[in-house]
Amino acid sequence: MPRKPKKTKPTGKLRIIPLGGLGEVGKNLTVIEYEEDMIVVDCGLGFPDDDMPGIDLVIPDISYLEANADRIRGLFLTHGHEDHIGAVPYLLRSINPPIYGTPLTVGIIRNKLQEHVLPKKPKLNTVSAGSRIKAGALEVEFIHVNHSIADACALAIRTPLGTVIHTGDFKLDTTPIDGEMMDIVRLGELGREGVLLLLCESTNAERPGHTPSEKNVGASLEYIFSTHEKKRVIIATFSSNVHRVQQIIDTSARHKRKVAITGRSMLNIVSAAIELGYMKVPDGVLVDINEIRKYKPGELTLITTGSQGEPMSALYRMAFSDHAQVSLDANDVVVLSSSAIPGNEKLIGNIINELSKNEVEVLHDALVEVHVSGHACQEELKLMQALTKPKYFMPIHGESRHLAANRELARHMGMKDRFIFLSEIGKVLEIDASGARWNGTVPSGRVLVDGYGVGDVGNIVLRDRRHLAQDGLIVVVASVDTDERLLLSGPDVISRGFVYVRESEELMEEVRAVATDAILDLLEGRRPVDRMQLKKRVKDDLTKFLYSKTKRKPMILPVIMNV
Amino acid sequence: MPRKPKKTKPTGKLRIIPLGGLGEVGKNLTVIEYEEDMIVVDCGLGFPDDDMPGIDLVIPDISYLEANADRIRGLFLTHGHEDHIGAVPYLLRSINPPIYGTPLTVGIIRNKLQEHVLPKKPKLNTVSAGSRIKAGALEVEFIHVNHSIADACALAIRTPLGTVIHTGDFKLDTTPIDGEMMDIVRLGELGREGVLLLLCESTNAERPGHTPSEKNVGASLEYIFSTHEKKRVIIATFSSNVHRVQQIIDTSARHKRKVAITGRSMLNIVSAAIELGYMKVPDGVLVDINEIRKYKPGELTLITTGSQGEPMSALYRMAFSDHAQVSLDANDVVVLSSSAIPGNEKLIGNIINELSKNEVEVLHDALVEVHVSGHACQEELKLMQALTKPKYFMPIHGESRHLAANRELARHMGMKDRFIFLSEIGKVLEIDASGARWNGTVPSGRVLVDGYGVGDVGNIVLRDRRHLAQDGLIVVVASVDTDERLLLSGPDVISRGFVYVRESEELMEEVRAVATDAILDLLEGRRPVDRMQLKKRVKDDLTKFLYSKTKRKPMILPVIMNV
Repeated sequence: MPRKPKKTKPTGKLRIIPLGGLGEVGKNLTVIEYEEDMIVVDCGLGFPDDDMPGIDLVIPDISYLEANADRIRGLFLTHGHEDHIGAVPYLLRSINPPIYGTPLTVGIIRNKLQEHVLPKKPKLNTVSAGSRIKAGALEVEFIHVNHSIADACALAIRTPLGTVIHTGDFKLDTTPIDGEMMDIVRLGELGREGVLLLLCESTNAERPGHTPSEKNVGASLEYIFSTHEKKRVIIATFSSNVHRVQQIIDTSARHKRKVAITGRSMLNIVSAAIELGYMKVPDGVLVDINEIRKYKPGELTLITTGSQGEPMSALYRMAFSDHAQVSLDANDVVVLSSSAIPGNEKLIGNIINELSKNEVEVLHDALVEVHVSGHACQEELKLMQALTKPKYFMPIHGESRHLAANRELARHMGMKDRFIFLSEIGKVLEIDASGARWNGTVPSGRVLVDGYGVGDVGNIVLRDRRHLAQDGLIVVVASVDTDERLLLSGPDVISRGFVYVRESEELMEEVRAVATDAILDLLEGRRPVDRMQLKKRVKDDLTKFLYSKTKRKPMILPVIMNV
Repeated sequence: MPRKPKKTKPTGKLRIIPLGGLGEVGKNLTVIEYEEDMIVVDCGLGFPDDDMPGIDLVIPDISYLEANADRIRGLFLTHGHEDHIGAVPYLLRSINPPIYGTPLTVGIIRNKLQEHVLPKKPKLNTVSAGSRIKAGALEVEFIHVNHSIADACALAIRTPLGTVIHTGDFKLDTTPIDGEMMDIVRLGELGREGVLLLLCESTNAERPGHTPSEKNVGASLEYIFSTHEKKRVIIATFSSNVHRVQQIIDTSARHKRKVAITGRSMLNIVSAAIELGYMKVPDGVLVDINEIRKYKPGELTLITTGSQGEPMSALYRMAFSDHAQVSLDANDVVVLSSSAIPGNEKLIGNIINELSKNEVEVLHDALVEVHVSGHACQEELKLMQALTKPKYFMPIHGESRHLAANRELARHMGMKDRFIFLSEIGKVLEIDASGARWNGTVPSGRVLVDGYGVGDVGNIVLRDRRHLAQDGLIVVVASVDTDERLLLSGPDVISRGFVYVRESEELMEEVRAVATDAILDLLEGRRPVDRMQLKKRVKDDLTKFLYSKTKRKPMILPVIMNV
């Protein structure tokens, strides 16, 4: 194919600004702007770390988007996983750009938005792989990729300076369940035309080789069903993995088993997937969870949520004998068709232990290939680079270790360091006709969601929560008359989370004595005294006393009332 | 070997009582008693779970031992790991049995006891593999095994009813670093004589095959040193793995590198191991950490603690640029010669991420075989059963899943279920001439250590800590006169860990209003009113109000003073 004749060089600037998903897992959000036109790729959520007690979700700081709302030509969603779409309802609280995604992605978003009250009607647009959407000076083309959810896409973003490819999350599956291999031909065509910049996901960049095909799981399921003909099979998996669920249903049907589904998100996604045609269920296979008593163990498969050990998930409740319809015993085999998301190992272990106690057989990915990753391993990441032949390379989607490993792959492919940009959230990569360079930062960060509160819990509140969790709290209440320099009542001492008071009466008496001494010492002294001084003195003296006595530092809250 | 002539059947009862290490990882402690004579095998500690905020250590409830102190003929230690000896200092607070262990084990215990004030001088006895110790009607023989610490032993306990074998922790290493393979001959001899009961560790019972030899790590180290000649090599490993440290030193010496050691526990154990002859360091290889500036990166190896990502460990401080002598960059390669203890994955990930950010190369066990387990896999566990041919079998040391997997191995070896006893802590297995059976329980459980406090934090305190961590705390203070039915001052509202008050003034005003209404409503009503009623009403009303407003449930502490 002959190259197009060169035009005059464009004079504008292209800016690539990740607002999430770099140096962290989740809350993926990338801004791509050319002069006045801006597009947003994905708007995901993250999950709280151990040092964020009480936090439900973490979303990206989108103040940069809010400040530039009029420039946003569209929000383009690569696929329907929470870490790519989960923050959309929060974004829609303040801005309302047109949203583009494939049918399953938009279907999931639509479901999700029903749970939120929004100021304006969202502008949802359904596209398909191959669609091209004009977005000001930019144009976005959706390209089919394989992933652990159906209908996932990479994006090719045409800009006056050249094409930017954003891979989204992907793997190469030559035998996918829906029959559609990743469109490597289209990616190769774009590579031949010339790709300015590749933004490439990094999740599995540390792993050599290829990610196995989803079809391998089918073979394992077949093996499990064949060797457990008399047992009920309970399979926990990610509800969004509709191809996995399809395989479980197909294998069950082949083995003349009925399938019951339990768990709210599993029921939601399966019904959406069936409705949109992403899942096909043979007639008479699905039965209601309330009907399962009619069938022998060997005639039933249950598909459930809870593969990450989530307390209150259906599987958790089954394991701990708290599920309305299902109790498990030696006639059951539980299959965890998943891998542990880092941090969830102990939760999953709790379920496996509880099941083992009750002689329930448990199969997981360390024993049988009941799960495959949805992300490209090193050979596929190298293939992506080889196909697209980008001038510039930026690893995205991953912790620092994954981004660094993806950079190593680019180096291994022969790319020079000056063409590789290891970015971080808020950092601006600017490209123009003369080259690429870092150029400043924009506001970025994390916003914590706790209950209905979005952003009302920050570092100070978290620090207090961690402090309270470590050693608990002591409240000292006294009323004084600072004019007459009298201790009128108290000090009373209340503690929570510090010691079991009934067994530590002596210690609590000492606490009261130390607080009394502190207050009286100031009141009976000669210097002027006020509430602040009294509070500080009580706090200091008690902190010192308790550390020497217990080696703990409970939070001390002195309440001094001046009557 | 001819069998001994049969004696008359003994009429006594043998009782096996695990007080820790079953259904959990750590705090291993097994009681074996024959009539009036009792021995204790190991006395280890455990680490707190995520749901025990602020807790430092978990030790076994030893009230059963305290109640039977006069019957204890000895505490026998299989090896020097914390989960087998870590609770000894706490046991010595209340009882003082003679303690037996091999030289390294006793050396580690002796070091540890220096940090504790004990009521009596401990009775430490050094034995060696092959030693036999009389303990009343029982006799304990130490048998050499391989493990990830030197000088580990299994125990053969002769009782009038037959021999009980307690494996301790073990693996079979045909090429161990100290040249001494596990004494399978002795175990086989005992099996031929007849073993009544095998208490067998279960840690790796889910893993097929054999655990690789420690020597494999040596080969990996050789490869790393050969391919990183210009880089400084920093290796983090478990300080107690003296054979691992020996291999690192030997490989360094071969590559003409000096070795510096950092991290308190690493320095302690290395000096103890050298002193006791368990480690041999060629002259001139060790250098002080303060001297390392004299050497080029390729001339140096650092051995450090922190392989589990522990905050404040030497490696953590190096990674986060907070180590006095060491800062890391692209001239360094960090080797994590360890595997993640479940629950520590994220901590370790934090270090790898931080190192990756600074272009420090990181090698870990997913990339190179820089670690091997110290525990027997399935083939070695089956070998143990095949050698000892026990009549009865009890899996020990492991979570429920591991115990269940070890039971599966026994079934696979052809053992009938009625000879397999899956126990739990506190449960009594009784064996006499007529057979074996469960017979009741003894007090058992966990005791939490928090700072200097042992056992003063229990479930109520932990529940409060978790509550405080989730949603923080609101203290409402008011003074009232219940006789005159007047609100004298307040209510004042103080919050910690709930919301950032400066940005939530409106909400806090509403809280005050709700509390005021609650108090006035009762005071201005007609029924009699007291402090308890006022507190309850404030708490109920605020809980309801805050949940509807924020979907959070902070702890509410009403302080009502009646003046």
